[in-house]
Amino acid sequence: MENFTFYAPTYFVFGRDAEKETAKYVKRFGGKKVLIHYGGGSVIRSGLLACVKDGLDSAGIPYVELGGVQPNPRSGLVYEGIELCRKENVDFILAVGGGSTIDSAKAIAAGAVYDGDFWDYYQGKIVEEALPIGTVLTISAAGSEGSPDSVITNDNGMFKRGATGEALRPKFTILNPALTQTLPPYQTACGISDIIAHLYERYLTNTKEVEVTDRMIEALLLTMIHEGPRAMEDANNYDARANIMWAAMMAHNNSCGVGRSQDWTSHDIEHELSALYDCAHGAGLAVVMPAVFTYNMEHNIMRFAQMAVRVWGCQMDFEHPEKTAKAGIEALRQFLISIGMPKNFAELGAKEEDIEKLAHTACYGDVRNGTLGGFVELHQDDVENIYRLMI
Amino acid sequence: MENFTFYAPTYFVFGRDAEKETAKYVKRFGGKKVLIHYGGGSVIRSGLLACVKDGLDSAGIPYVELGGVQPNPRSGLVYEGIELCRKENVDFILAVGGGSTIDSAKAIAAGAVYDGDFWDYYQGKIVEEALPIGTVLTISAAGSEGSPDSVITNDNGMFKRGATGEALRPKFTILNPALTQTLPPYQTACGISDIIAHLYERYLTNTKEVEVTDRMIEALLLTMIHEGPRAMEDANNYDARANIMWAAMMAHNNSCGVGRSQDWTSHDIEHELSALYDCAHGAGLAVVMPAVFTYNMEHNIMRFAQMAVRVWGCQMDFEHPEKTAKAGIEALRQFLISIGMPKNFAELGAKEEDIEKLAHTACYGDVRNGTLGGFVELHQDDVENIYRLMI
Repeated sequence: MENFTFYAPTYFVFGRDAEKETAKYVKRFGGKKVLIHYGGGSVIRSGLLACVKDGLDSAGIPYVELGGVQPNPRSGLVYEGIELCRKENVDFILAVGGGSTIDSAKAIAAGAVYDGDFWDYYQGKIVEEALPIGTVLTISAAGSEGSPDSVITNDNGMFKRGATGEALRPKFTILNPALTQTLPPYQTACGISDIIAHLYERYLTNTKEVEVTDRMIEALLLTMIHEGPRAMEDANNYDARANIMWAAMMAHNNSCGVGRSQDWTSHDIEHELSALYDCAHGAGLAVVMPAVFTYNMEHNIMRFAQMAVRVWGCQMDFEHPEKTAKAGIEALRQFLISIGMPKNFAELGAKEEDIEKLAHTACYGDVRNGTLGGFVELHQDDVENIYRLMI
Repeated sequence: MENFTFYAPTYFVFGRDAEKETAKYVKRFGGKKVLIHYGGGSVIRSGLLACVKDGLDSAGIPYVELGGVQPNPRSGLVYEGIELCRKENVDFILAVGGGSTIDSAKAIAAGAVYDGDFWDYYQGKIVEEALPIGTVLTISAAGSEGSPDSVITNDNGMFKRGATGEALRPKFTILNPALTQTLPPYQTACGISDIIAHLYERYLTNTKEVEVTDRMIEALLLTMIHEGPRAMEDANNYDARANIMWAAMMAHNNSCGVGRSQDWTSHDIEHELSALYDCAHGAGLAVVMPAVFTYNMEHNIMRFAQMAVRVWGCQMDFEHPEKTAKAGIEALRQFLISIGMPKNFAELGAKEEDIEKLAHTACYGDVRNGTLGGFVELHQDDVENIYRLMI
């Protein structure tokens, strides 16, 4: 195991009606002037935004609002949020929504107290200072509610890039599984796909002797395989939603990723798809993952075989471990299809003729240096080959 | 799943030579006058104490010392520590040692800023204020390095009782697996037994639909079954020690215990043994656990069968699930014996003639009200029967 530090000081309030306590936690973590950041109509229609605002009103905490976050959140709105925070002397950012809203809130939180362009953080500069952030989560997916990470799409060239820094960990997060019951099935499924991807990205490691984190990742995947279909079958299954919600957070707060190299190839390759076609990130990942794993399988057959046996219940073929490894990837593919995820470029709205451009941007776009991948080092031709596996 | 809150803001510094950074973290978390609290000779002999003191000296942070913590730490030393903190205006407690040292440090930290008797906290009062605590861990076992809990033995009557409160979570914890390589095999095994017990206490729940935490607990148990024997076989196996160290912390920081009722019967029944005979807590648990589980098995055969199949690799007997449940308990018993743990009262130094007294103290001692157990409600006659299973 490699040396590491781990610090996850987010206060989680989990359960039915938890959102009613939002103002209490804004106050506990020092918020005196709040920016409420959200997306579109769903938090308005559901009454969640009104509930949060009522709470702040009752607590005498003033706020301003900025809605309009899109899936694959954009830099334009971040700049707008930063300006608003400065103008209104905001000292606390409250994200009400899913991963896109939280990521956008994190970018605003970092940018509001930074003299330079906030995009610097999305080019590799570590975020060391940011306004405090609280979140009220409405979809189990990104894990941003407990992570130090944020992903933003730059309107200028449509690069999708990530930033990180301990200052971005939310101070508190409200997790009410019932809030996810009103999601359309497709969004629930996209969330499941994203959670599974966060686990695979950590599982695909070159670090030896990491049994504890292997086992934790497997545990969270087994949970998703059990609970995912239950949530798809009955959107109102509170317990399935609850198990998924905690698994989503644990999958990405990095307690199961410490002390080991990680991959993130699937995310990098997917980000180009959702940046260019504005498809849902989870849907993109569902198409990307089987292709990446098939391409990279030879790098460590036994790792894929272990996943296949421990998580997907495949029988180990001791004479031909590569068959077991393949069976595990196929089981993942079938699982994703079974919950309604797309299976290829066409279903995603992606185009074969863009492959060279996609691969080039993935490898050279913005500050990239020609390669990607923590598990296998991939060059542009590799990435093109991977995209071709998705046709 | 039940509603819950979860907040675990401990900064973990994990890896080789991590102890050299102790002073940096004392400073980061505001320590200006430190009490270094430790046990006996091992931290002196190993040079660990000197290393920590050198670091504080170099950082210009003054300190006082209080050694002499025993396994099953006593109230007498806690009172001494509290007095010393007040006299010396200590504002930070640094525990260098194992669970006993950390628990004693927590009691001092709480008592130093409390007007009443610190023992109030060990009679049920929640700790809401305490001096900040840092730890340098020397044995993987108690999980106290990442938990809000502390257990102290009262010299006055030899009650062993626990306190809890978020204020008791360490601000930082130094985890260097290499520091555990010098432990005698018996102590390593006691630690393994304690970690396993923390997982079973959480697994034995009456809450339904808790797949995510079930799976996480199973993951950590599978880790212990794999890594425990490797650490016993080769004390210097750094990777085995590292996996155990992270598993021990995860087993007890409660991320795998949220939203579900927990048991803690084995701990309550064991505490009477280590209070009376001063045996090692982990050794006591090794004798207690199979007895408790055998006695309670009928309460939920399927829960024990699930544990047997998923963790101990037993074949499910679908016609006679109770046979599978029993096989799992037997597998646990054999595992504990295989790493050198005692298997009965005699090997523990406990006496059959004390059973009534032990059971009475467990059920009525100090502030107890006649019953114990979160999984099955047990009365004194049940507890006597359980002790008899250990003969």
